[in-house]
Amino acid sequence: MSSTAGKVIRCKAAVAWEAGKPLVIEEVEVAPPQKMEVRMKILYTSLCHTDVYFWEAKGQNPVFPRILGHEAGGIVESVGEGVTDLAPGDHVLPVFTGECKECAHCKSEESNMCSLLRINTDRGVMIHDEKSRFTIKGKPIFHFVGTSTFSEYTVVHVGCVAKINPHAPLDKVCILSCGISTGLGATLNVAKPTKGSTVAVFGLGAVGLAAAEGARLAGASRIIGVDLNSNRFEQSKKFGVTEFVNPKECDKPVQEVIAEMIDGGVDRSIECTGHVDAMISAFECVHDGWGVAVLVGVPHKDAVFKTHPMNLLNERTLKGTFFGNYKPRSDLPSLVEKYMTKELDLELEKFITHEVPFSEINKAFDYMLKGESLRCIIRMDG
Amino acid sequence: MSSTAGKVIRCKAAVAWEAGKPLVIEEVEVAPPQKMEVRMKILYTSLCHTDVYFWEAKGQNPVFPRILGHEAGGIVESVGEGVTDLAPGDHVLPVFTGECKECAHCKSEESNMCSLLRINTDRGVMIHDEKSRFTIKGKPIFHFVGTSTFSEYTVVHVGCVAKINPHAPLDKVCILSCGISTGLGATLNVAKPTKGSTVAVFGLGAVGLAAAEGARLAGASRIIGVDLNSNRFEQSKKFGVTEFVNPKECDKPVQEVIAEMIDGGVDRSIECTGHVDAMISAFECVHDGWGVAVLVGVPHKDAVFKTHPMNLLNERTLKGTFFGNYKPRSDLPSLVEKYMTKELDLELEKFITHEVPFSEINKAFDYMLKGESLRCIIRMDG
Ligand SMILES: NC(=O)c1ccc[n+]([C@@H]2O[C@H](COP(=O)([O-])OP(=O)(O)OC[C@H]3O[C@@H](n4cnc5c(N)ncnc54)[C@H](O)[C@@H]3O)[C@@H](O)[C@H]2O)c1
Ligand SMILES: NC(=O)c1ccc[n+]([C@@H]2O[C@H](COP(=O)([O-])OP(=O)(O)OC[C@H]3O[C@@H](n4cnc5c(N)ncnc54)[C@H](O)[C@@H]3O)[C@@H](O)[C@H]2O)c1
Ligand SMILES: [Zn+2]
Ligand SMILES: [Zn+2]
Ligand SMILES: [Zn+2]
Ligand SMILES: [Zn+2]
Repeated sequence: MSSTAGKVIRCKAAVAWEAGKPLVIEEVEVAPPQKMEVRMKILYTSLCHTDVYFWEAKGQNPVFPRILGHEAGGIVESVGEGVTDLAPGDHVLPVFTGECKECAHCKSEESNMCSLLRINTDRGVMIHDEKSRFTIKGKPIFHFVGTSTFSEYTVVHVGCVAKINPHAPLDKVCILSCGISTGLGATLNVAKPTKGSTVAVFGLGAVGLAAAEGARLAGASRIIGVDLNSNRFEQSKKFGVTEFVNPKECDKPVQEVIAEMIDGGVDRSIECTGHVDAMISAFECVHDGWGVAVLVGVPHKDAVFKTHPMNLLNERTLKGTFFGNYKPRSDLPSLVEKYMTKELDLELEKFITHEVPFSEINKAFDYMLKGESLRCIIRMDG
Repeated sequence: MSSTAGKVIRCKAAVAWEAGKPLVIEEVEVAPPQKMEVRMKILYTSLCHTDVYFWEAKGQNPVFPRILGHEAGGIVESVGEGVTDLAPGDHVLPVFTGECKECAHCKSEESNMCSLLRINTDRGVMIHDEKSRFTIKGKPIFHFVGTSTFSEYTVVHVGCVAKINPHAPLDKVCILSCGISTGLGATLNVAKPTKGSTVAVFGLGAVGLAAAEGARLAGASRIIGVDLNSNRFEQSKKFGVTEFVNPKECDKPVQEVIAEMIDGGVDRSIECTGHVDAMISAFECVHDGWGVAVLVGVPHKDAVFKTHPMNLLNERTLKGTFFGNYKPRSDLPSLVEKYMTKELDLELEKFITHEVPFSEINKAFDYMLKGESLRCIIRMDG
């Protein structure tokens, strides 16, 4: 039992007071975990596009003041009532979506869309009592996707916590709690390319590069990267991309260009842009008879996916995935294990382009906004 | 070696001289089979909607004079050069789509869309020499989808012929050469519902009823039939349909009605109408997380499938199939075998609602046009 258990912890957190304004490091009070909750000390966190979207709050509901952050690695400090499978000292990854293990989704082998703990970006409170565990001088500060990892301590529902091997390097595996697993799982769990097959990846941001890395690990013979930004090609080679197409530089639809490059189309495609035109191209560029297209990017709320039904009747498959179909508690620990034992030759280091101390967290936002970083690790002790 | 081998055979065929006009039984000359071709005596044939569409030639290219027909059972009379796996006397089912066993599709475990012998509804000749094997007083009569079974003898590419158990009742299994296999395979090979799951079938014609029969055989716990014609419900119960929805009688989209009936949506849906609105509903009515929708109906050439991409991202799968993903030569013989041994409790008799002698073939068209028949068997000896 830690000496802080059951007590309020005072610590530093980066608070987003207003949309688009630099975060401010504040002293916050973190309440003890309630029923089915876990309080953890965050050691490393990293910045993902989703944090930036909700901080900018342009296409998203503004919920402020808020503590953002959802990719992280930490150590359990104390647990609330009813928590039996986690104890102080456990090494953990908090995850923005959960696994209650009781609902139809959690019981299904195929789904990871837990009815109880599925991501909810508008909620700023804990589900147990609809209250925040963060306050500044008694005034509540909102949570973000149940994780709020831009704080030295945070409180998370036990269903959103993956317990991992304590020997895993938290400064690396922390990036498995969102984008990297999303892209990797989209390929390995959903698209499932076989050895020697051809794969197209639309969008070469961190998620798309993780999808390409998955295709490389699966032994794809050709990996075609598609991006509107040709600068992305050079970097993508490290992730297995063998050829590059920029739709802006093509004189016909990119699906036709790909069908010509690969004799009828690719075996698998993974869409990681969030733009509906890329989704349509990603679907139509797969080979008839056996091609599978997987959508990952989060679309605009008014987007419409359109295609001629013959493209489907010709035996193409279209799917979508959320967090790469990984179940956070059941699957992340073994993903970490496979990374450590090199059963999966996953090179997380390639995604980590920057590192800053917590006091300089706003620099991580700058790197991402300038398109310079893939992942910037934020050290909480700094 | 039969006495007719290598010679022209004179026999009766039902010729469609003009769009929409009754077929006329004529004496035709049937040339010997050429390289990789088989000449067969047809014993039983049945009428499918596709014959009617091309006979009406409203939405289809008119190709006349033509011998229609593609669902049939027969016996090999003689074989052309290069045919090694069929011999005179073999019992066979001709199929409108083929399997060359050499192309990428034939070599793929997933596809049945043979590059060489894929259905081509506009072609009226054999692929070997681009000529017809049928003449009347020397003037060529066109073939239909490589089968033209409304003739006592016909010539078919060996890749479009399934050799079946000679003890199989040809007057029943002949209906496996098109619509029934299409619906059955859409469920068993593509949608693959598990025991106890819920299935929706859109369109309760012969294809949809075969899809429902597949769901019944797979042990589905609830099978929801959807049709604009409420009269279809009574008949569909024999094929396992447990509940019925008529979209015209609903005050909200049928996908919402189904989601309410089955707590979030069905596990699987199979679309057998060919109408794009039904395709969209069939997709959107499957459960998030694990639902799979399969499109079977052939759409209008200008149809557009539209949906919000979130419906996909929420882990739904959308697929299409052609001939139920059966490979004609590899899979039909064992389907016939499973029917005979009752390994598959498939009740083909339920689909056969009418029977006429060849001389009355136009009656089969009447029954179908009036919506009275599912399948009408045409006895060639009559
Ligand atoms: N489904 C999930 O669980 C999940 C999880 C995390 C992120 N995401 C989504 O994945 C997507 C990618 O995330 P990211 O962090 O890698 O984004 P990113 O912005 O770093 O990268 C996107 C890339 O796509 C390119 N692009 C944009 N439009 C394009 C088009 N029409 N054709 C080709 N390329 C195009 C951009 O140039 C950019 O390089 C986002 O939509 C994000 O919201 C989904
Ligand atoms: N993919 C293939 O390989 C293949 C093979 C054979 C047939 N088909 C196609 O399958 C479809 C069905 O064939 P069939 O012979 O059973 O046809 P059918 O005309 O006998 O039956 C279709 C049924 O759908 C119903 N229907 C029409 N629009 C509807 C809607 N919007 N919602 C609900 N029900 C609706 C009709 O009332 C009818 O009962 C056709 O499009 C046919 O071309 C495909
Ligand atoms: Zn759950
Ligand atoms: Zn993220
Ligand atoms: Zn082939
Ligand atoms: Zn047919």
